[in-house]
Amino acid sequence: MAEKKGVEKKYSIGVDLGGTNIVSAIVNCQGKIVNSLKVPTLAERGKEATIKRIIETIHENIIQSTIALDDIIGIGIGAPGPLDVKRGIINFAPNLPGWIDVPLKKKLENEFNMKVVLENDANAAAWGERCFGAGQGVNNLVCFTLGTGIGGGIIIDGKIYHGNNYGAAELGHMTVNKDGPRCNCGNYGCLEAYSSATGIKNRIKNRIKEGIKSKFLNFDNDDELLQSLRLKSIFESARKGDKLTKGVVEEAISYLGIAIANIANILNPEMVVLVGGITNEGNKLLIPLRREVKKRAFYSNCKSLKIVIGKLGGNAGVLGAAALLWIPNNCSC
Amino acid sequence: MAEKKGVEKKYSIGVDLGGTNIVSAIVNCQGKIVNSLKVPTLAERGKEATIKRIIETIHENIIQSTIALDDIIGIGIGAPGPLDVKRGIINFAPNLPGWIDVPLKKKLENEFNMKVVLENDANAAAWGERCFGAGQGVNNLVCFTLGTGIGGGIIIDGKIYHGNNYGAAELGHMTVNKDGPRCNCGNYGCLEAYSSATGIKNRIKNRIKEGIKSKFLNFDNDDELLQSLRLKSIFESARKGDKLTKGVVEEAISYLGIAIANIANILNPEMVVLVGGITNEGNKLLIPLRREVKKRAFYSNCKSLKIVIGKLGGNAGVLGAAALLWIPNNCSC
Repeated sequence: MAEKKGVEKKYSIGVDLGGTNIVSAIVNCQGKIVNSLKVPTLAERGKEATIKRIIETIHENIIQSTIALDDIIGIGIGAPGPLDVKRGIINFAPNLPGWIDVPLKKKLENEFNMKVVLENDANAAAWGERCFGAGQGVNNLVCFTLGTGIGGGIIIDGKIYHGNNYGAAELGHMTVNKDGPRCNCGNYGCLEAYSSATGIKNRIKNRIKEGIKSKFLNFDNDDELLQSLRLKSIFESARKGDKLTKGVVEEAISYLGIAIANIANILNPEMVVLVGGITNEGNKLLIPLRREVKKRAFYSNCKSLKIVIGKLGGNAGVLGAAALLWIPNNCSC
Repeated sequence: MAEKKGVEKKYSIGVDLGGTNIVSAIVNCQGKIVNSLKVPTLAERGKEATIKRIIETIHENIIQSTIALDDIIGIGIGAPGPLDVKRGIINFAPNLPGWIDVPLKKKLENEFNMKVVLENDANAAAWGERCFGAGQGVNNLVCFTLGTGIGGGIIIDGKIYHGNNYGAAELGHMTVNKDGPRCNCGNYGCLEAYSSATGIKNRIKNRIKEGIKSKFLNFDNDDELLQSLRLKSIFESARKGDKLTKGVVEEAISYLGIAIANIANILNPEMVVLVGGITNEGNKLLIPLRREVKKRAFYSNCKSLKIVIGKLGGNAGVLGAAALLWIPNNCSC
């Protein structure tokens, strides 16, 4: 009984560092958030100001939780990359201006005097789903994070797979059409340019420029209005047969299906977990997606593959970050 | 000294089972072939006849080598798949008619009374290059086998990566163009349909049908002549600016570059090793290939990636098969 009490006393802190918000959450050994805090990143105020905000948010999170410092194992951070997981350094972050080679792990270790682990945000989300979400008990899974951009996390033999220099799982930058639209990464025809929220909106914008009109959505060439439009409205309009959005949505799903089929043929995982805004479409996304994968992947690789939507919603990253602190390759503290 | 002598006494047998030939080789602990034998598979004579030929070839190989049975650790077989590595069963082999769920491991164990390991032929080639060829000491590498078809092998953390049900590394069936030509696997626009020897020849055939003529090669609509043509002649003719072959060769290289860039972004390996007929082109292949990868892969993933040609030529598979018997995850016996 004493042992059980001991385990229950353990917590870790998960931090999700994004371009828009910082989320800090205290997570117990069962993967439940006992207290969390979300504050705007205010990245435009510069690197030092953002680091200060991260530190203050974690402090406030601890205070609000009333949990003793001794009961907290450490801090796990999911951050945009590229980053050096081993040394805990963010090399560069497109959405955090001025962040070049920032030793975030060391800074937080000095401040909190506890263990700190830094991880790529998409890997953290994959790890969250692996530990507490759709991928519980699954040792080989691939997670696609479908948001403004597209990221990914690969779990092999129950561990996050990093590759040779922490650059693995850049799933959004798989070339799916060699002559496709230019992507932010400099390449042409990346998955992200078709199937991310930004990609979908850019493709719609281009069609508006070509003179194609929507029956349901009226943008009046107002780019801000288009950018603020929710994916839900775009998908609904496409389903109603709208000329403007239909082709774009179908292409987004088709290319995502190709990317998943490629992952099935390359890695033969047990499960592909999809997280991010677009997954709100549920079966309206999954059914055509599975059809595309079936058309393209090897029979046995496809037959054995579960393609599912994550169960943790927006908390996958923060929960996964917290679980980085626990016994390596294990989802228990 | 006695210990060293012991090691030197150990051998294993590598078998490369192909649609055209069976190769059996006795390999010492340093990865040297001490005796090898190559016989035609004669697959058209049926499954039982081929199994008998495999057994006879191995027996003959042992006899010729004059090595005592006690000094042979076991038999490793590289075979076309899909196959079940764990149970040692070939589920199906397109080039071996009638081979459905053949328990080859068990059959050879019964015959030779020694340990037998079955592996996918492309994985065996990857393992050969990892142990004795271009990938010595490299723990994360991906091998493309570029022949009649295109296969692959993925080495992660120094081990062959099999995936959930032994279906990983089907690199030739990555979709690189969603509306591309039909592939033997049923999908459209697979890498294999563009960059394998068969793919290249089929694309040339289609261009001949479209009325495009070659300045250097004269097929007279003779398909047999085309099929017998060596890749070397096709590449040479393309380099001379031949209208018929140039576009096909450029496309073959470009799509192979895309596939490697995708692997770089997905797996971030330390090395990509290319084996098979097309690699005879050497730098004439490598230079445009590296250019394409650089254009498409993430900077740091590409910068750290070595793209090289295998060092074992046609022996990669048989050497890798022999090394399957040794200490797991290790390339020494």
